[in-house]
Amino acid sequence: MVNKKDEKGISVEKSKDISEWYTQVLQKAELADYAPIKGFMIIRPRAYYIWEKIQKEFDKVLERLKVKNTYFPLLIPENFFKKEAEHAEGFAPELAYIEGKEEGERLALRPTSETIMYDSYSKWIRSWRDLPLKLNQWANVIRWEVKQTKPFLRTREFLWQEGHCVFETEKEAREDMEKMALEYQKLVEGLLAVPLIVGKKSEAERFPGARETMTIEAFMPDGKALQCGTSHNLGQGFAKSFDVKFLDKNEKESYGWQTSWGFSTRLIGAMIMQHGDDKGLVLPPAVAREKVVIVPILFEDSREKVLNKAKEIEKSLKKWNAKVDDREEYKPGFKFSEHEMNGVPIRIEIGPKDLEKKTVVLVRRDTGDKELVKMSGIEKRVEKVLEEIQESLLEKAKKFLEGSISEAKDMDELKKELNKKKIVKVYMKDDKEVEGNVKDQTEGATSRIIEETKKEGECIVSGEKVNTVAYIAKAY
Amino acid sequence: MVNKKDEKGISVEKSKDISEWYTQVLQKAELADYAPIKGFMIIRPRAYYIWEKIQKEFDKVLERLKVKNTYFPLLIPENFFKKEAEHAEGFAPELAYIEGKEEGERLALRPTSETIMYDSYSKWIRSWRDLPLKLNQWANVIRWEVKQTKPFLRTREFLWQEGHCVFETEKEAREDMEKMALEYQKLVEGLLAVPLIVGKKSEAERFPGARETMTIEAFMPDGKALQCGTSHNLGQGFAKSFDVKFLDKNEKESYGWQTSWGFSTRLIGAMIMQHGDDKGLVLPPAVAREKVVIVPILFEDSREKVLNKAKEIEKSLKKWNAKVDDREEYKPGFKFSEHEMNGVPIRIEIGPKDLEKKTVVLVRRDTGDKELVKMSGIEKRVEKVLEEIQESLLEKAKKFLEGSISEAKDMDELKKELNKKKIVKVYMKDDKEVEGNVKDQTEGATSRIIEETKKEGECIVSGEKVNTVAYIAKAY
Repeated sequence: MVNKKDEKGISVEKSKDISEWYTQVLQKAELADYAPIKGFMIIRPRAYYIWEKIQKEFDKVLERLKVKNTYFPLLIPENFFKKEAEHAEGFAPELAYIEGKEEGERLALRPTSETIMYDSYSKWIRSWRDLPLKLNQWANVIRWEVKQTKPFLRTREFLWQEGHCVFETEKEAREDMEKMALEYQKLVEGLLAVPLIVGKKSEAERFPGARETMTIEAFMPDGKALQCGTSHNLGQGFAKSFDVKFLDKNEKESYGWQTSWGFSTRLIGAMIMQHGDDKGLVLPPAVAREKVVIVPILFEDSREKVLNKAKEIEKSLKKWNAKVDDREEYKPGFKFSEHEMNGVPIRIEIGPKDLEKKTVVLVRRDTGDKELVKMSGIEKRVEKVLEEIQESLLEKAKKFLEGSISEAKDMDELKKELNKKKIVKVYMKDDKEVEGNVKDQTEGATSRIIEETKKEGECIVSGEKVNTVAYIAKAY
Repeated sequence: MVNKKDEKGISVEKSKDISEWYTQVLQKAELADYAPIKGFMIIRPRAYYIWEKIQKEFDKVLERLKVKNTYFPLLIPENFFKKEAEHAEGFAPELAYIEGKEEGERLALRPTSETIMYDSYSKWIRSWRDLPLKLNQWANVIRWEVKQTKPFLRTREFLWQEGHCVFETEKEAREDMEKMALEYQKLVEGLLAVPLIVGKKSEAERFPGARETMTIEAFMPDGKALQCGTSHNLGQGFAKSFDVKFLDKNEKESYGWQTSWGFSTRLIGAMIMQHGDDKGLVLPPAVAREKVVIVPILFEDSREKVLNKAKEIEKSLKKWNAKVDDREEYKPGFKFSEHEMNGVPIRIEIGPKDLEKKTVVLVRRDTGDKELVKMSGIEKRVEKVLEEIQESLLEKAKKFLEGSISEAKDMDELKKELNKKKIVKVYMKDDKEVEGNVKDQTEGATSRIIEETKKEGECIVSGEKVNTVAYIAKAY
């Protein structure tokens, strides 16, 4: 880890080498650091604050929807993973186990908690009166990735929320899946200003054990899609494997209909990649701890006056956690760069001339635009500009996303469009083999979302008439 | 797990068999459940809500003290535990490791995070400008207990916060240790109404690797002390083992002075044990999700009128999350018992006669006291009664605690007083061997706190003149 104060800025352009850019931003904006163990990360306060904002916002959603928070154990008996066949197969390669203790049975670190939670659900649920059961947990999970890891985007441990609900009817479960995908979209677009495509996953991309999976997909500046959260209609598969039964109103025994849904600290990675620029991090005001930094321009003769005024302004902007940077050991230019690196949404500069004119200079982090603002109207202007930044980050990213969606009629066109870093809509049969073929021919692109269409078209692989369109892209 | 609706109440008296009482309350008030793995627990929503309240309250303290939240990895390389000798020895028996992966080195699940955090601190800290560094994390930890486990009180996985600070001077570190112990006391007494004795740990009871440990100790109705949180002055021991150095203002290299402090979900267990009674859980209003339940007494001819009034009252008491229990399948008496089991602080009963008289019956969970309250003044009265409950729970527990402290001059007296379920003050040398002797002779009692005194006295074991008094008790 290089001490960021030793270094000036990011040494590569984001558009030239986004991977290296991302690594440098993480460290220089003090967002994350590498752990002593491969594939793990340290979430530093600036990034953890974003996670806390996400948690607070989503806890409000949970309260509104009457989902309650709970906590289940980190360790899961090995045999639990064998009960639901698809689930078992899907997670087996990523499981980590602890070394044998007296129990005899192997214990896995949770990669997700369907199995251990539904074991309890089967004991807690007796009748329709106990339904719907809607629980959520905030937890760390371990998935022993073999792919290249990258802080926030793919790590062997990450933080997430996982919601697990049981309903009386299939209809309720499907509605819950859909509702949660839309709640995710609202949260991510509103707070992180990351626009999403929302839709269903193909059979090949579905969660192991789910009947249907909905996904929220972001699109990164390097032309790769990033799955930001998923919501599953589990049908009765897990209920049958874990014996989640209830007596319905007619005293008839019936299996529960289940959903699960989750998003993780990966969202932080999406936000960094989406908005950052060559100067460093760009934070949407909604997730910036300090939304305003005030840099006084100090000369010996006016020093005290300027500092006092800066502190006065700091006070009046307390609502946005404004901070005067009065460190004596650094020059203003150095401070500007540092706060730009850290993504502070607004910088206010104040010097002796500003005192005379009763103005300050206000600089937007996202655009770099400067404006003179009268001191008397500073609060209103700051409030307005913060709103504008939040909106314009989302708008800009939306335009990019919309401009990145294209179409292809055959495999050659698909390859060409993918090379142009597009998300490409193609007619494709919802079939694992067909999708495997697409993946092979495109060197790894996958369907991010699949949609039913009214008009039929020819499957890009088999030529069959189908009414499903897939959004094909490379993905993280 | 017995479905609580099948059972009437708790089948033992708290004063006769607190252990069985505790187990039943956990399950019947749906606070916790046993996990499929021995020594682990499931924290159910009613208890998790308490943890969330504690988190929110303590996060405010952290913000005030400029401590920032962060997250470090769950897994720690084995060699990290060997760097600080005492720490290594203290935690070795409780470490769990994961099965070998490609890395070669064994990886332990964190029992506490001093080692992995200070490894990063050594990279992040360069100069006095980087100090104080004050970080906290909310996390799960694993300690493979061999003692009998009990949900919340002693489990192999628990949730906690751990704060880790580095200062320039010894004085700052000592002050931080003391300040945090007092913050803990304020939090626990204020929110959970659990009174505490605060003081220093003896050499024998100190945290492995700490120079001084302060503790907050609660005292349970069965005459056992319960350590509820600790705050350590780590001196420079870890700094030297992990190379946490900085350049001071004179450009001289110096080791950092460190503290760490933590409390866990054990607090929930303390609260349950302290306040609960033979009817079940008693919740301090500050940590009750629903502070008021309204039970309508329904007869056919007045049914609708009474229900409407109940809903009206529910609305006017929204601030306290009041809930009308309008379930048709249960009778009022059943509902009373259930809400008593769940610890809801206030019950309001409303029937047809109340409509005429424009009154309701208000029942306090803690005392069982009933009073007639005019509907017109219901809000003010509820507010007042909730305050009274919160205060009187603390007062009652304080009286019990104060009445439980006694003194002894020799070993016989000590044993007698311990048999009377007291915390016993004795003159004792602060020495591991001496304390081992006390433990042997008393069948396991330990010093919970040790204080310096002005007056000298004879050590209860060695007879030497000492000026340290220990509080001896059996402990969880």
